[in-house]
Amino acid sequence: MAKIRRLGVLTSGGDCAGLNAVIRAVTYRAVRHYGWKVFGIIDGTMGLMERPLRYRELDLDMFSGNMLREGGTFLGTVNKGDPFNYPMPDGSTQDRSLDFVDGFNKLALDAVVVIGGDGSMRILSQLCERGGIGMVGVPKTIDNDVHGTDFAVGFTTAVNVVTESLDRLQPTAASHHRVMILEVMGRDAGHIAVNAGISGGADVILIPELPYRLESIAEKIDQVIREGRNHALVVVAEGVKTEDGLNAQVAHSHGQTRYGGIGHYLSDRISKMTELETRETILGHVQRGGTPSTRDRLLASAFGVHAVDMVAKGRLGRMVAWQERGVTDVPLSEVCIGPRSLEPDGTLINVARGLGIYIGESP
Amino acid sequence: MAKIRRLGVLTSGGDCAGLNAVIRAVTYRAVRHYGWKVFGIIDGTMGLMERPLRYRELDLDMFSGNMLREGGTFLGTVNKGDPFNYPMPDGSTQDRSLDFVDGFNKLALDAVVVIGGDGSMRILSQLCERGGIGMVGVPKTIDNDVHGTDFAVGFTTAVNVVTESLDRLQPTAASHHRVMILEVMGRDAGHIAVNAGISGGADVILIPELPYRLESIAEKIDQVIREGRNHALVVVAEGVKTEDGLNAQVAHSHGQTRYGGIGHYLSDRISKMTELETRETILGHVQRGGTPSTRDRLLASAFGVHAVDMVAKGRLGRMVAWQERGVTDVPLSEVCIGPRSLEPDGTLINVARGLGIYIGESP
Amino acid sequence: MAKIRRLGVLTSGGDCAGLNAVIRAVTYRAVRHYGWKVFGIIDGTMGLMERPLRYRELDLDMFSGNMLREGGTFLGTVNKGDPFNYPMPDGSTQDRSLDFVDGFNKLALDAVVVIGGDGSMRILSQLCERGGIGMVGVPKTIDNDVHGTDFAVGFTTAVNVVTESLDRLQPTAASHHRVMILEVMGRDAGHIAVNAGISGGADVILIPELPYRLESIAEKIDQVIREGRNHALVVVAEGVKTEDGLNAQVAHSHGQTRYGGIGHYLSDRISKMTELETRETILGHVQRGGTPSTRDRLLASAFGVHAVDMVAKGRLGRMVAWQERGVTDVPLSEVCIGPRSLEPDGTLINVARGLGIYIGESP
Amino acid sequence: MAKIRRLGVLTSGGDCAGLNAVIRAVTYRAVRHYGWKVFGIIDGTMGLMERPLRYRELDLDMFSGNMLREGGTFLGTVNKGDPFNYPMPDGSTQDRSLDFVDGFNKLALDAVVVIGGDGSMRILSQLCERGGIGMVGVPKTIDNDVHGTDFAVGFTTAVNVVTESLDRLQPTAASHHRVMILEVMGRDAGHIAVNAGISGGADVILIPELPYRLESIAEKIDQVIREGRNHALVVVAEGVKTEDGLNAQVAHSHGQTRYGGIGHYLSDRISKMTELETRETILGHVQRGGTPSTRDRLLASAFGVHAVDMVAKGRLGRMVAWQERGVTDVPLSEVCIGPRSLEPDGTLINVARGLGIYIGESP
Repeated sequence: MAKIRRLGVLTSGGDCAGLNAVIRAVTYRAVRHYGWKVFGIIDGTMGLMERPLRYRELDLDMFSGNMLREGGTFLGTVNKGDPFNYPMPDGSTQDRSLDFVDGFNKLALDAVVVIGGDGSMRILSQLCERGGIGMVGVPKTIDNDVHGTDFAVGFTTAVNVVTESLDRLQPTAASHHRVMILEVMGRDAGHIAVNAGISGGADVILIPELPYRLESIAEKIDQVIREGRNHALVVVAEGVKTEDGLNAQVAHSHGQTRYGGIGHYLSDRISKMTELETRETILGHVQRGGTPSTRDRLLASAFGVHAVDMVAKGRLGRMVAWQERGVTDVPLSEVCIGPRSLEPDGTLINVARGLGIYIGESP
Repeated sequence: MAKIRRLGVLTSGGDCAGLNAVIRAVTYRAVRHYGWKVFGIIDGTMGLMERPLRYRELDLDMFSGNMLREGGTFLGTVNKGDPFNYPMPDGSTQDRSLDFVDGFNKLALDAVVVIGGDGSMRILSQLCERGGIGMVGVPKTIDNDVHGTDFAVGFTTAVNVVTESLDRLQPTAASHHRVMILEVMGRDAGHIAVNAGISGGADVILIPELPYRLESIAEKIDQVIREGRNHALVVVAEGVKTEDGLNAQVAHSHGQTRYGGIGHYLSDRISKMTELETRETILGHVQRGGTPSTRDRLLASAFGVHAVDMVAKGRLGRMVAWQERGVTDVPLSEVCIGPRSLEPDGTLINVARGLGIYIGESP
Repeated sequence: MAKIRRLGVLTSGGDCAGLNAVIRAVTYRAVRHYGWKVFGIIDGTMGLMERPLRYRELDLDMFSGNMLREGGTFLGTVNKGDPFNYPMPDGSTQDRSLDFVDGFNKLALDAVVVIGGDGSMRILSQLCERGGIGMVGVPKTIDNDVHGTDFAVGFTTAVNVVTESLDRLQPTAASHHRVMILEVMGRDAGHIAVNAGISGGADVILIPELPYRLESIAEKIDQVIREGRNHALVVVAEGVKTEDGLNAQVAHSHGQTRYGGIGHYLSDRISKMTELETRETILGHVQRGGTPSTRDRLLASAFGVHAVDMVAKGRLGRMVAWQERGVTDVPLSEVCIGPRSLEPDGTLINVARGLGIYIGESP
Repeated sequence: MAKIRRLGVLTSGGDCAGLNAVIRAVTYRAVRHYGWKVFGIIDGTMGLMERPLRYRELDLDMFSGNMLREGGTFLGTVNKGDPFNYPMPDGSTQDRSLDFVDGFNKLALDAVVVIGGDGSMRILSQLCERGGIGMVGVPKTIDNDVHGTDFAVGFTTAVNVVTESLDRLQPTAASHHRVMILEVMGRDAGHIAVNAGISGGADVILIPELPYRLESIAEKIDQVIREGRNHALVVVAEGVKTEDGLNAQVAHSHGQTRYGGIGHYLSDRISKMTELETRETILGHVQRGGTPSTRDRLLASAFGVHAVDMVAKGRLGRMVAWQERGVTDVPLSEVCIGPRSLEPDGTLINVARGLGIYIGESP
């Protein structure tokens, strides 16, 4: 195990809340406890691929103000392409992975902490392998679809934003006797939709993991109306397909109708089936940013400290993780296997069913 | 001036935050101070037009809990059509205004407080005129485009929601070096866009009242980048047209491109002119609902008390209003003249220009 | 296992956020899924002890509005004394436990779901034992000190309130170069202090579980100043004693000084040791109430559904619990053993130490 | 009118939310529009009194991130004493006003924008007069007690914090059938108490401007209970005295009782008079800090731009102000006449009375 003196840290992939809190924890642990130097790489892999190198030394003073509470990443996370297949101006691609490795060596780093999601973790672990670079990963993604960890940084903030939006949509739905459809992030997995749907009082939650029937949705809304409600709330993950399995943005299956997305599709279908007024809302990028939740700050702090301790102990090629009630770590090889779906009979899906929410047919 | 014993109150038009706070203030004043009975009409004009009449007597106990803080209107505000031209199942229209008048008389009301926006105020004042019904109006609309008052109930809550969204979009814009376009409510007037744009740190604000040039937008963004920023924020009111004056949702002016709205149009145009990544977000109905802001609760309370005092004094056919630093009232005839635009050289537009925000060409 | 037709539910002990969400989940599950009748007992044990009985039947319609989002408990939780030693007007005490049992029988209930903390759970389980009443417990307490479960309902909302307060105190501390001391709830355990202290960026966290030295606090603050900060944040649980082990509210140990509480004591001591300006804030009851956090709503929903399922299966005399990543249940006998402290080398205490926070001496 | 090239800006007195937004607007206007240099003076008057001078040049880049949204003042506002009577280590005082003037000249400033409250405005205007320094004031104070302006920066954020606290206290009050007393800032004036009291649903509001009777408070609470409530909310400004006109912190008027403040006093008295449970909460410094409200950001932006324009036009010795619906300015001589009280029959006091809130006896 090599003696560490200079540690790099970078953020990669889509931003989310809590990244700065991870960087802060990494710096606090590495500088205060181990006395290392910490270098923040600017704009993900780009900072080490471009010349001159783009980075800044991170000192404790940088975090004396508000950084813990700021959304996004002050290091930036611009992605101009996979270094192994980097897009060139002439349309071809080029393997620029050695630029990354060379940048790492030029900066004389001993190891790097990579804060990223599913995809970034895979590419970065290949880059590090290529260069014999010691890497520790920290999982982050609003979608929470990283294998090996119960929670990734940024997820609960996104859930809070969605829940708050449902809190705002419920009274306007009730005032107008409407069915409100809220389309939320989640291309491959329904973590945000299920968590926020339950906590925000949804009647219907649709996720990529479970098939659904429009007729069952209409029946559920009818039931809610019979119980004395005058409105209903539907939460749908963006990755959900039309009932017949098409991408809603290109679907032309119902005559002339062209849909802007799954929310639009459901709004149209539900209004026709139930004769109730419907309205859809697409939350988009507001789910990404903003002040991190308490839980994301805790997670970020635990992950940052543990990541540095792993570097110190030479436990490399691994990702920090939250399992059960504490922080641990797993091999990167177990993580880089694609997005993590919700288990069809996991706790929250059962809670949703237990409350009487329609969350799709049993598979 | 007739002795008042039974007061009706109804909400009409689109819902917003603070309606329940108005109803509470009306009830508190009328019951506690004057000892009247107060009847809440369900679903706006519909409650008096349908048989059986739909209403509930409002007592103080109803407001002992959380009602002051709840968004929307617990009386409902379903609009099935203009009573003077009510749409019938066979496609024809019918004048059903006398149903409203008859309902008012059946309930033996002495006057009615109407909480509504520009359009509702006009229709309700005609209905009341038709029936010789004493009416006092209370202005509400998230768009703040009611004549005669500086502020309508619901406006500042909407501005807060938009500002909060900009607070969330800024860090993600900075993390990815993007231009973020936020499309907000405002068909005819840019009140929300200007207020939230300034408070949320926008670089560009586009409103229906002022023409703009895409080239000026691109120049402003270039300037911001030269100053050291890596991102920019653009706020646009939904009522803004394309540069050549078309409705963005139907515009086909740029070859094959079909736009989902003005936000989409700007996103496309700006990305092409500046070569920066752009993303658009459409906030939609989350601007309507939710817990009212402190200011909307104050306004709602002042309006509710004053409206009842006006009924007591026989000052009917008027709308309560906030002017300068206090509550007052204006004749309904001065209100019902269409939506109120921002003055092109009003304080906030000058503040925006003073900060260096691009807010359109001088007209 | 007796057939269940009539289920009681009551809240007992100090209120917190998420209680209404539990009651809603209990009602949804019992009525929608099992078709039972559900009766909400008013004001905890009092509703069954007083005559006439105080209760209301709970139907689905009650939860169609905002109830999921409201703080506190709409059933009330007034405690006038331990039924086994009920205080009488003449100063004596009387065993009134049979009044509770009799009330339960009068209402012809088949079982009762008790939502309560450590103390309530103990008394209620004794009352139910006395009467042969089938009981299932649901843990709630802002202090999170209930044995057998990782989380109790209400805890994360309280942590959020404290974190938000630290977010507000940090900039004012920095503006004035002050040490801010925040006294938070936690008589016996430091769960709130540790969670909020880490997420709110505290430099010092004091909890009842760990001894501390004033000199170590002063050293930590000196270190922070040397690192380039001009201010510091201290979080202390109300149950922490003075350095010499006294209750701060009655301590006279330092000459004439009489302290209002541990926050006041630390403020005085730290200002004298560091020559920095200090200010203390006592959050008090704002930690209890208000809209429940996303997590508390999820927890409440999972607990409510599971509690009803346990009644249905005849798994009585148990408390629902959150362990690891799912809902489970434990015998009440394992719960009613006093408050649950933080483990001295648990994850979060180690995270705090890892960040360089002073959290007391190693025991 | 001298040509301006170098502008100073400083914050003085207690911090509040929105100060950074003023500094940002001053910098944007001065640099972007006029092309001046702007110097931020560190720690109020101290930065110009100490040697070496403490200041930093402000450029546009500083505000590219989150500064608009951060509470407090990044320039600091440490006050070690009135420069005219500066406290020396030996206990004497010394006139150090010329140090300030000399510092101003050393930095070769042409004018200074002073962001301060009532007291700071008076001292700074004397300092500037002494040195022939051109000054423009910007009013800030959470108490809103500056003459000449309807609103000072920081006030509405404080009101929002208090309202939010009442929103949290109401459900816990209702759950336990308690009277909650909330003590808020306001030594000389009740602006916060009245604004937040109305918007937060208080039943009783006590302010320094109006005498009150304990018996009237008890009667109001009795009335509320008779109307069907089981709880009540009382808001009191810290500057309110005991019924017999004493400072509550030193009052011994009721036998042995010694009160921690007016909240404590009221809690004790009300519980004895009404036989209801009472609890008091003192919000303290959380009212100062944190993210500025939308309105404070608008105000700060309007004030900053206008202040710079005044400097440009040579309109010195004046304070910017918000009157009616726009920004204006007033002579400093009209401002520096002590704190501004609420008018006893102003709009909001009448609204409070109109709702049936007890707000003290008519004077």
